[in-house]
Amino acid sequence: MSLRAGIIQLLKNTINTQRVQSKRVHHIAVIGAPFSKGQKWQGVEHGPAAIRSAGLIERLSSIGCNVYDVGDLNFVQVPDDELYNNTVKYPRTVGLACQRLAKEVNKVIGAGHTCVTLGGDHSLALGSISGHAQHYPDLCVIWVDAHADINTPLTTSSGNLHGQPVSFLVKELQDKVPLIPGFSWTKPCISTSDIVYIGLRDLDPAEQFILKKYNITYYSMRQIDRIGIQKVMERTFDQLLGRRQRPIHLSFDIDAFDPTLAPATGTPVIGGLTYREGIYITEEIHNTGMLSALDLVEVNPILGATSDEVKSTASLAVDVVASCLGQTRECAHRIIDELPTPGAAFDTDSEEQIRI
Amino acid sequence: MSLRAGIIQLLKNTINTQRVQSKRVHHIAVIGAPFSKGQKWQGVEHGPAAIRSAGLIERLSSIGCNVYDVGDLNFVQVPDDELYNNTVKYPRTVGLACQRLAKEVNKVIGAGHTCVTLGGDHSLALGSISGHAQHYPDLCVIWVDAHADINTPLTTSSGNLHGQPVSFLVKELQDKVPLIPGFSWTKPCISTSDIVYIGLRDLDPAEQFILKKYNITYYSMRQIDRIGIQKVMERTFDQLLGRRQRPIHLSFDIDAFDPTLAPATGTPVIGGLTYREGIYITEEIHNTGMLSALDLVEVNPILGATSDEVKSTASLAVDVVASCLGQTRECAHRIIDELPTPGAAFDTDSEEQIRI
Amino acid sequence: MSLRAGIIQLLKNTINTQRVQSKRVHHIAVIGAPFSKGQKWQGVEHGPAAIRSAGLIERLSSIGCNVYDVGDLNFVQVPDDELYNNTVKYPRTVGLACQRLAKEVNKVIGAGHTCVTLGGDHSLALGSISGHAQHYPDLCVIWVDAHADINTPLTTSSGNLHGQPVSFLVKELQDKVPLIPGFSWTKPCISTSDIVYIGLRDLDPAEQFILKKYNITYYSMRQIDRIGIQKVMERTFDQLLGRRQRPIHLSFDIDAFDPTLAPATGTPVIGGLTYREGIYITEEIHNTGMLSALDLVEVNPILGATSDEVKSTASLAVDVVASCLGQTRECAHRIIDELPTPGAAFDTDSEEQIRI
Repeated sequence: MSLRAGIIQLLKNTINTQRVQSKRVHHIAVIGAPFSKGQKWQGVEHGPAAIRSAGLIERLSSIGCNVYDVGDLNFVQVPDDELYNNTVKYPRTVGLACQRLAKEVNKVIGAGHTCVTLGGDHSLALGSISGHAQHYPDLCVIWVDAHADINTPLTTSSGNLHGQPVSFLVKELQDKVPLIPGFSWTKPCISTSDIVYIGLRDLDPAEQFILKKYNITYYSMRQIDRIGIQKVMERTFDQLLGRRQRPIHLSFDIDAFDPTLAPATGTPVIGGLTYREGIYITEEIHNTGMLSALDLVEVNPILGATSDEVKSTASLAVDVVASCLGQTRECAHRIIDELPTPGAAFDTDSEEQIRI
Repeated sequence: MSLRAGIIQLLKNTINTQRVQSKRVHHIAVIGAPFSKGQKWQGVEHGPAAIRSAGLIERLSSIGCNVYDVGDLNFVQVPDDELYNNTVKYPRTVGLACQRLAKEVNKVIGAGHTCVTLGGDHSLALGSISGHAQHYPDLCVIWVDAHADINTPLTTSSGNLHGQPVSFLVKELQDKVPLIPGFSWTKPCISTSDIVYIGLRDLDPAEQFILKKYNITYYSMRQIDRIGIQKVMERTFDQLLGRRQRPIHLSFDIDAFDPTLAPATGTPVIGGLTYREGIYITEEIHNTGMLSALDLVEVNPILGATSDEVKSTASLAVDVVASCLGQTRECAHRIIDELPTPGAAFDTDSEEQIRI
Repeated sequence: MSLRAGIIQLLKNTINTQRVQSKRVHHIAVIGAPFSKGQKWQGVEHGPAAIRSAGLIERLSSIGCNVYDVGDLNFVQVPDDELYNNTVKYPRTVGLACQRLAKEVNKVIGAGHTCVTLGGDHSLALGSISGHAQHYPDLCVIWVDAHADINTPLTTSSGNLHGQPVSFLVKELQDKVPLIPGFSWTKPCISTSDIVYIGLRDLDPAEQFILKKYNITYYSMRQIDRIGIQKVMERTFDQLLGRRQRPIHLSFDIDAFDPTLAPATGTPVIGGLTYREGIYITEEIHNTGMLSALDLVEVNPILGATSDEVKSTASLAVDVVASCLGQTRECAHRIIDELPTPGAAFDTDSEEQIRI
């Protein structure tokens, strides 16, 4: 380790210690967002239930989080919600759901919680990031996904809004984004330099064009293959947090993982993140101490071919969320301060004495 | 196809043509080589059909290639084709098939195509490389495989010629290679420094001896574990293209991949390439701009335990070929030049106006 | 490569060459240790049989080892073997089994063999390392495992002794380890700086505390993700062998591998070593020339969901052991010294002449 690296590490450790001490208890709010109209598959509305069944709340408690479970929001389908421009599907329904979620996210973050949104489809990120930004206008976004979800309503070929949320969020893109029904409440809240993508491997032509023209940073699977996940995270934080500490919004689509790990999802793409890469990403984000909100989206229990596939996908989602909030592979539980020492007392039957 | 879909396709084709013209259109010739007598398993002669069924031709067209499908060559089994030296199997049959393939490869490359040979077994590479070298005597070879296929007819223990083609191709080895029936037409066309192996993990003792003694570069799985696939490709190109640009012949055995990814093949070996490593290799080869011919061999649909195994192996083969020819993980489709901008016109139902 | 690294490599190569020449034949003793009372699952006592059925002895012979198969030891369950401190299970039974194994390991190492112990559960390592240390007091330990197995009898929550063996072995920990029935024969034989862990990903709080407080080196999966397996091994050897060459005891728990590779084991943990990482570890250990004993533990054939899972786990165990003892991915067999040259003699039918 060079001197420079050594000093940096020392500073990091100091910062970490301070962070841990100041953040000894994570206050977490969990919002279920059983919404599916941003895409075509039935089932993603059961995502929150599947993730809860896989033990999310208990896991978070077990790693020392103080969990406030908001429960599931009620979303409504707007009647006569016609295609926008003959293409974009359910604009009013999606817009309303995002507005509803934004309000709730803003509320729990305002109350001092770290906000966990369980999707539902990825159109919801328009809501969660908007609500988050109302409280923390200087937030930055890490978007972990096989897809960039940055089509505009004018470039989408599928018409599904889960492929478009980022286009509404980025300020520089607004002259390319039409006013569509249901979205009049939205307000672009991030700049192109405030978002970093990780895991991309299936981009539409217009998305590719946007990423290049607007100079948006993305680490595709190819880039991860080139430089490795450690450098990807280092560069991500250099860009987003290098000049100042600020809140992180992590928007994590389960399809960032390889389909062998997360089969129960709507748009799987071969060649994704390994388990270890995904967890490394979330551990690193946790270690910044700056995570303020996260979305875990696109778990679709109906699309698992077997119950094992559903369970493993949901369990992976639990690991992602827990790893964001302090679960580590080095010690998954609470910390102890000393070891018991043998002595007369320990040779009795008293159970209490051997507890740690 | 609906009118709308028809218009979209028309626009796509127009855009495609423009892009491709500015980027030198890839003219691809696809040669099916349904040949299996270089090894012991029934079924590898169905490889070309399986790869075509998995959508190869359509995929290549969709990424802008101009594809000329030669169809499948007819190979004959030479009657009374006795063992050579009590060991080497079907020498005249294999020799004749390779001669036939060499002629065809030479023809399509002479006509300006990039040549894709779909095996069939890996003995065919003696034919494809020979034919390629007749047109481009200065070619170099990248051989991606679990095996080195460099036994001589005097060192082979199995007698299968798919384990021996390289020995006939390398000039420095010729005093060790006997004249065998059916091979009088062959002429060694590469030097030991003109070939690089990637993915090796199962070498016979004589092969190990040959690689060491003749100082042939190989990146075994162990070496990939040591330095990573990025450095492997960098060093490969440094060696082969460092002093001068020259045509690349890629000979890709599907068994280079881990058997979990490519189970439907005759000689799987545990501990192979990941999907991402394999695609990284082919992306990098494409990016040199020097790929002139490629073999994709040893897909054997009969050896898949399930139809899923066959499909995933064939689909992997399609990805390998497409990735060699321009498919990328960052944008798999055509390029666009500008974004549509909202305006009065875009708020109507007019379809044409929202096209990109 | 720096000058220093270059010189080190040169020295290593020289040493390697000498080693290979002086150690052309490995004399191996294989001890079966069908013992399961260090943990809760039925079946791990069948580990030695499963590994033998997967062809261990034949494999070792095929790579040139001279194998002395000790057979399976007989272990007895001590009657009335009460819980220690209301928690620790089967203390006298485990203690006696380890004592028995220690004696046998000491004997075969004294006789000049490299000792392979086939478990059985990981409590056995207390026996094998103790026996090994009786002959080579300066040994060092590489412990490859998902778990640290370093709870003391006062910190264990499960009470299973397979989670505690290291606590009995480390000198610096002895004021924290009570005298428990069946363990009076044990004597701590390594210091905290003499052991390196690789693969950890599931630590109890007390274990985490011990590793940190006693400054024990461990490369968790997170650390492997950060720096890569090549650097992990480099640093491991720098620490253990940097100042002096000394015997290595490798204690390899099959659960270090990812559960997709080694499902038939008692305490699988997601996110483990890949096949290639595991084999890289053992190849590197072999290449030091200093491996003196190894344990391969926790293969439990009853816990495989299918016979394929059992077979793949046992086969993996064979690969690990064989790779420790000279099997390589570059040449798995014996070395040859020259190539046959074509000539009149080779064009006959004489089979002998074409043998290598």
